[in-house]
Amino acid sequence: MAVNVERNGQATAMKKHTISLYVSNKPGVLIRIALVFARRGFNIDSLVVSAAHDPSFSRMTVVATGNESTFDQILKQLSKLVDVIEARDATLEDVVQRELALVKILATPETRGEVFQVANAFKSDVVDIGANTITIMTTGKPAKMDAINSVFDKYGVVEVVRSGKLLIGRGDSIM
Amino acid sequence: MAVNVERNGQATAMKKHTISLYVSNKPGVLIRIALVFARRGFNIDSLVVSAAHDPSFSRMTVVATGNESTFDQILKQLSKLVDVIEARDATLEDVVQRELALVKILATPETRGEVFQVANAFKSDVVDIGANTITIMTTGKPAKMDAINSVFDKYGVVEVVRSGKLLIGRGDSIM
Repeated sequence: MAVNVERNGQATAMKKHTISLYVSNKPGVLIRIALVFARRGFNIDSLVVSAAHDPSFSRMTVVATGNESTFDQILKQLSKLVDVIEARDATLEDVVQRELALVKILATPETRGEVFQVANAFKSDVVDIGANTITIMTTGKPAKMDAINSVFDKYGVVEVVRSGKLLIGRGDSIM
Repeated sequence: MAVNVERNGQATAMKKHTISLYVSNKPGVLIRIALVFARRGFNIDSLVVSAAHDPSFSRMTVVATGNESTFDQILKQLSKLVDVIEARDATLEDVVQRELALVKILATPETRGEVFQVANAFKSDVVDIGANTITIMTTGKPAKMDAINSVFDKYGVVEVVRSGKLLIGRGDSIM
């Protein structure tokens, strides 16, 4: 965890937060939300926006890194925005977390068998094969995605497309 | 497809576009990109942002709906933005498309068996079970996601979290 020193000399920690938002599906909402993070110096690591079951609303999951001490203010500002129905910190909540990744790996006819084996071990589906590459689709918790990336690095990862973190409440709870 | 009439009287079609972007992972990039769409009246339907294999870059996939005639200008403006390495229209490209969804469905002990069956038919994994709900994870092309949503509507869909469309080039091609 990186530690920054603020102007008042107090050391503050940089921390990664996961924020779950439920917003009206209207133009401009995304910009207003992104501005709240930018003004407080938070970097957005990943962002997922898509239509909710009711298409007049959208669900967003934001993973952002920044100064722990200003995070409460960000959450308050987000909640006050027009068109934001709910904004909550889901970092420590008991939720189901999943991510999707498409990974294109170098695989010559000689190494293809090995790459298939590793893909199977990770319960990944092969979605496409080229002359020198294999493209797999894999789902799981974000930590698994990092593990897969580092295992395939041995063969050569040509391209990775990740969805970022998706959250849904455990049991009967609705977020 | 909705048809709008512009000021000059020319009828223009609203169309859904998929844009693939490769950008520097710097604060503010997201806002500048969102502004380009907002200024031209394009609504962002879904957006996926996550770190590329090289973490100093991010990959974005945007699905946006708007006036067909202004779309070329949007693409040009995106390409000119600082920190945008590449912006391209992937709407008609031959790419692998996948999406991830977490769906929480009403399932009493009586209907649970049925819901399991449907989930299996769609090759979906059950990721959580509550007293009155089942949460499944499913991956596939966006059309499959819509089909799943409508099938489960019969039982009652409590919550849906979708990743939006992820794209990766076919064969050995890199986007």
